Amino acid sequence: MKVGFVQNNPKFGETEANLEQIKTLWGNLSAELIVLPELFATGYQFNSKHEAKELAEPIPEGPTTQKLISWAKETGSSIIAGIAECDGENLFNSAVIISPNGYIGTYRKAHVFDTENRFFSQGNLPLQVFELGGIRVGVMICFDWRFPETARTLALKGADIIAHPSNLVLPHCPDAMITRCLENRVFAITVDRVGSENRVDGEELSFIGKSQVVSPEGDILYRASEKEEEASVVEIDIDLSRKKKINSKNDLFEGRRLDLYELN
Amino acid sequence: MKVGFVQNNPKFGETEANLEQIKTLWGNLSAELIVLPELFATGYQFNSKHEAKELAEPIPEGPTTQKLISWAKETGSSIIAGIAECDGENLFNSAVIISPNGYIGTYRKAHVFDTENRFFSQGNLPLQVFELGGIRVGVMICFDWRFPETARTLALKGADIIAHPSNLVLPHCPDAMITRCLENRVFAITVDRVGSENRVDGEELSFIGKSQVVSPEGDILYRASEKEEEASVVEIDIDLSRKKKINSKNDLFEGRRLDLYELN
Repeated sequence: MKVGFVQNNPKFGETEANLEQIKTLWGNLSAELIVLPELFATGYQFNSKHEAKELAEPIPEGPTTQKLISWAKETGSSIIAGIAECDGENLFNSAVIISPNGYIGTYRKAHVFDTENRFFSQGNLPLQVFELGGIRVGVMICFDWRFPETARTLALKGADIIAHPSNLVLPHCPDAMITRCLENRVFAITVDRVGSENRVDGEELSFIGKSQVVSPEGDILYRASEKEEEASVVEIDIDLSRKKKINSKNDLFEGRRLDLYELN
Repeated sequence: MKVGFVQNNPKFGETEANLEQIKTLWGNLSAELIVLPELFATGYQFNSKHEAKELAEPIPEGPTTQKLISWAKETGSSIIAGIAECDGENLFNSAVIISPNGYIGTYRKAHVFDTENRFFSQGNLPLQVFELGGIRVGVMICFDWRFPETARTLALKGADIIAHPSNLVLPHCPDAMITRCLENRVFAITVDRVGSENRVDGEELSFIGKSQVVSPEGDILYRASEKEEEASVVEIDIDLSRKKKINSKNDLFEGRRLDLYELN
């Protein structure tokens, strides 16, 4: 099967233009699953909760989700994309999960990073695996990577692929996701943006690009550039993620020592 | 404080010569903690359980542990070292923990790798943190790295440093230990051997060296060569491992979403 992503450079607050640019970058690429970055349509650095609220949208009624639903129908691709979500007075840093048949579900970022806490509430939905055309896709967002329990929970729930919309400013995540794949024997599609924003107190945030697809064996199947917008598709063998046995004696799930772990 | 390691190339079955060679490599290096590889005194590839039993020793009565106890007294260093342990009829792939005042404790490898299962029983002792001169050291052995719960348990139990005797034949561990340090904000001292063994069914095992000390910020403070024996010492600031907060909003322990993780 084919999976892919679009790595964009959104203009802050220009949702419509950003959606158009995604579609331009996407072009005619064909894949069963396309992942877009965290907050791909709005940009990242809100100045105030008021501003975040103005740009956030309800899911699935909002125009960004509706546009993604129409693209999924049109292209035959499932889409997972990061969206600023409003739910009454609460805002969430969310991802929508959409199949060619329509809206499937939402994930709300569980580990909200740094200044995002000014706007976004902590995610209050379970870590979930979504069935998309026979493929099981777990979803987490950006900083969720730092907590091994996130990917572990998704893998134990049966994820073949972890879809991971991101806006990375620190350098470690792309290589750390190799560890996440090795320890869980899953694919991971980490999708970042490029460019920079300079909207709050003169604090410039630069995003590191390097969107990537990593295999259950820890191989980087594709890694994008640090600076350029692009869309890419990779062929993957989903069966690899369903074998948790790495030799005749060691199964990465059955070999867990629940009798020895103390994780609370 | 100073921590260090000896990366050796043991001759299979020649315990006395291997101990002498460790002492030669160690030389006059001074450190509060010295870590040695997994099975550093015996070599790795036993031909039969009988052969493993011949080379295994009781802890702490055995001559290898006694020698390490005498070195710790003599040098003022705590020592953590991998030993083939016999306990009645059972063999364990173990590590001894020794302070300048004597024997402190034992850890038995929890996740036994591949053909080791022919000889060694699964570890039956808790994942533990040992207090060594005010420093809290958690111990795990080689393949334990692959299971994020191991280092996580040690970190949650208060480890400042993870001492990690290893015999690495696969390429991924050294980089994956950077992730272990980042996710737990601990130091990790992974100590490997070099050279190769060709003892079982003509199967040659080559060990990748690259013993290393990694900081809680994911920096490789020192990484040894792939081929050469050596001893090295690194200065570390232990306070780094005691701050789990990475910015004003995110504490890596307090920020865990135990309400969302499903790990059983």
